[in-house]
Amino acid sequence: MTGASRVRRGRGRPSRTETAAAPATRDRILEAAREEFSERGYEKASVRGIAKAAGVDSALVHHYFGTKEQVFEAAIEIVFASALSAPDAVADGPRDAVGERLTRFVFGVWENPATRRPLLAVVRSAVNNETAAAVFRRLVAAQLLRRIAGQLDVPDPELRAELAAAQLVGVAMLRYVIKVEPLASADMEQLVARLAPVVQGHLTNP
Amino acid sequence: MTGASRVRRGRGRPSRTETAAAPATRDRILEAAREEFSERGYEKASVRGIAKAAGVDSALVHHYFGTKEQVFEAAIEIVFASALSAPDAVADGPRDAVGERLTRFVFGVWENPATRRPLLAVVRSAVNNETAAAVFRRLVAAQLLRRIAGQLDVPDPELRAELAAAQLVGVAMLRYVIKVEPLASADMEQLVARLAPVVQGHLTNP
Repeated sequence: MTGASRVRRGRGRPSRTETAAAPATRDRILEAAREEFSERGYEKASVRGIAKAAGVDSALVHHYFGTKEQVFEAAIEIVFASALSAPDAVADGPRDAVGERLTRFVFGVWENPATRRPLLAVVRSAVNNETAAAVFRRLVAAQLLRRIAGQLDVPDPELRAELAAAQLVGVAMLRYVIKVEPLASADMEQLVARLAPVVQGHLTNP
Repeated sequence: MTGASRVRRGRGRPSRTETAAAPATRDRILEAAREEFSERGYEKASVRGIAKAAGVDSALVHHYFGTKEQVFEAAIEIVFASALSAPDAVADGPRDAVGERLTRFVFGVWENPATRRPLLAVVRSAVNNETAAAVFRRLVAAQLLRRIAGQLDVPDPELRAELAAAQLVGVAMLRYVIKVEPLASADMEQLVARLAPVVQGHLTNP
């Protein structure tokens, strides 16, 4: 958000990012895209609007990322980057603490102001638009959850990972999106203490 | 949905509902409202559009229900009617089966074609609009969850009820809205068997 504002203010004069090469332009487009998708939602957002906010031509956005769907996917991928990086902070590590790692990861991205907005954009877009829902399925289900499931030596590992994720998706919906009290104001450590064993149970209980 | 279509087709000639008195008109407006909110979402829906679909004057809609927000609340209240009716099918009954009752109730409204569409309208509206979110909070949190919490003799009963609800909200999101596999196609009884103990645990575990 602040990045996109900076880009808008700075257009026409050299900014910090403009002094760097292609990777900086790419990042600036992604930042503008996150801003555009957060502000307008997937359906109303346009590659043209993203290009304008980033101070580049639409053709350059297409050159780097492809279609609007692919821009969306790239823009929100950062939200999941910490979980998808190797060594994977969620899937790897002691098996009896995978529930707590997944729980802390989800709270981490929601409590972080830099990732909360893109995540809100993902949620708002995914419940209203099939293309955005498909991106969510690819990123969350196919990458994050399947990776966790791959580490579990249990029957129905993918269904288990999805039920565990469902607990955390629901908490995020009620706490950060709908803002139901007392959940919205509850202490995070209190929530982790209640949720980690439930998430763990879904993943590894016989 | 079929009701609203019927009303539209039938305008100008006597229909089944038009032969009845005020309660039928009220129901027809609610049916048109559910259709309008499902189709267009809360923000784009209008009392004028609802009135037109129901074949009545906007003033009559206001007379029966008040503001657009109140029409929305009345239109979606039917979704929760079975849980809010007395004797309350969820809150009442053996305490050690309240988790299964809540789980079955949530699947019941989502699996029922008559309530799935209004519920989708609630979810889509609530994640995108603060007024719709407030209605969701009133109906789900203040009525359904607080009622369940009132029956629990445990610390933090409201937080517990919300964490239990979060599990089911998340499952509904991933199964019915985002349609993540294998959850979207999983057998309902298999899901109840996995979820009921978790929901019960949130509500009554020490």
